[in-house]
Amino acid sequence: MKREKGLLIVLSGPAGVGKGTVCGALRKQDTAIEYSVSATTRKPRAGEEHGVNYFFKSREEFKEMIQNDALLEWAEYVGNFYGTPIDYVRETIDAGRDIILEIEVQGAQKVRKAFPEGVFIFLAPPSLKELRDRIVGRGTETEDIINERMHVAKEEIDLMRMYDYVVENDEVELAVERIKAIVTAEHCRRERLKYQELVEVKK
Amino acid sequence: MKREKGLLIVLSGPAGVGKGTVCGALRKQDTAIEYSVSATTRKPRAGEEHGVNYFFKSREEFKEMIQNDALLEWAEYVGNFYGTPIDYVRETIDAGRDIILEIEVQGAQKVRKAFPEGVFIFLAPPSLKELRDRIVGRGTETEDIINERMHVAKEEIDLMRMYDYVVENDEVELAVERIKAIVTAEHCRRERLKYQELVEVKK
Repeated sequence: MKREKGLLIVLSGPAGVGKGTVCGALRKQDTAIEYSVSATTRKPRAGEEHGVNYFFKSREEFKEMIQNDALLEWAEYVGNFYGTPIDYVRETIDAGRDIILEIEVQGAQKVRKAFPEGVFIFLAPPSLKELRDRIVGRGTETEDIINERMHVAKEEIDLMRMYDYVVENDEVELAVERIKAIVTAEHCRRERLKYQELVEVKK
Repeated sequence: MKREKGLLIVLSGPAGVGKGTVCGALRKQDTAIEYSVSATTRKPRAGEEHGVNYFFKSREEFKEMIQNDALLEWAEYVGNFYGTPIDYVRETIDAGRDIILEIEVQGAQKVRKAFPEGVFIFLAPPSLKELRDRIVGRGTETEDIINERMHVAKEEIDLMRMYDYVVENDEVELAVERIKAIVTAEHCRRERLKYQELVEVKK
C-alpha cells in the first residue's frame, strides 16, 4: 500500500497562541516532516539566514512572485509582505514527503482552496480567557488595543470551523505530541491509501 | 473545551489478519481505552472468565438479548453466537471514556449504522499475498479451503471502503502505535469538539 503524495499540513491559529513555539518544538524532534520557508520583504534580523528562516525578497521580486502565481498564499503585515512559495511545497509532497506550513488564519483559508486535501490544524488557546490573559500579560498594551485584539481573536476562532483538527496549546509538549499523532493518523486515513492493489487478487 | 462523549473505536479486518494479537498488545499498554466484552454461547475454555473474556450465555439467553435489542451486533460462527452487549458500550462513551470493539467486518457494518460517529479502523495485511501466505502458512488447509478463504478475504477487503482508517499490520508494535495515534487525533477532530464556549466572548 503506497502513498502517492506526502501530506500538506497547515498549522494555524490566532495571533499570540504560540504557533511559532509549537512549530519550533516540533522541528527539534526527529520527524520526517519538512518545513516550508516563507518569502518576505522584511529585512533580515541578526542571525537570520536566507533560505533557512526566510527567503528575503525586494518588494519588486515579491510582487513578481504574486503575479507569476508563485505564492500559495501571501499577506501584508505591518508594512511587509509575507508569503509561501508554492514550488517547494509541491515538490515536497509530490516526492511523497510531508511538509508543514505555519501561517496566519487568512493564509490558511487561501491554502484550503488550493489544497483541499491538506491537513488543517487549528492551534487553540485552552480558552479565550487564557488568550486574553496572554495578550494582557505582555503588559505593553492599552485596553483599546487589547479589546481590538480580542475582537480579532474571536473572528479567528470563528474560522476554526474550516479546520480538520483543533489542537489545544495547553502545554507545548502535549500540543507537539497531538500534531505528531494527527500526522500518523492522517497517513492511515482510508481515502488517502492506494488499496486497489490489495483488492486485485492474482489468480 | 470539553468533550461530551468518549470515542467508540471499532477494530476490524479480515480473518487471520491479527486483530486479536494487535488488540491484546494494545491492552497491555497503559492507555485510557476500555475494552468491550462480547457475549457468546460457546463454552468457556480453560482459563476464560465470565465478564472478562466473554459473557457466557445460553442460546436462550442470547436469543432474548437479540430480541431485546441488547446487542449492538451479533453473528453466528461455527455454530455459536457472538455479540456485543450495547449497554456497556453506551455507558462507557456516555461517561466520556473511549471503548474499543474488536469484531468481524460484518459486525462492523452493523455498528456503523448504529454509531456513524464511531472511529472505524480496518486492520489490513501488508498485501493480499502476505495474507495468503499467512493462511497457507498454517499448513493445515487444503487448496480448496485456501482459495475459499482468499475469496472471503477479497470480499472483506472490498469492505475497507466503509472504514475511516486502514492500519497495516506489518508489525504489531507499529500497528498499536498507529491505533493510539488515531485515537489521539480523533480527540482533536474539530467536529468532535465543543468550541462554542470559546467563541462566546464575555463582554
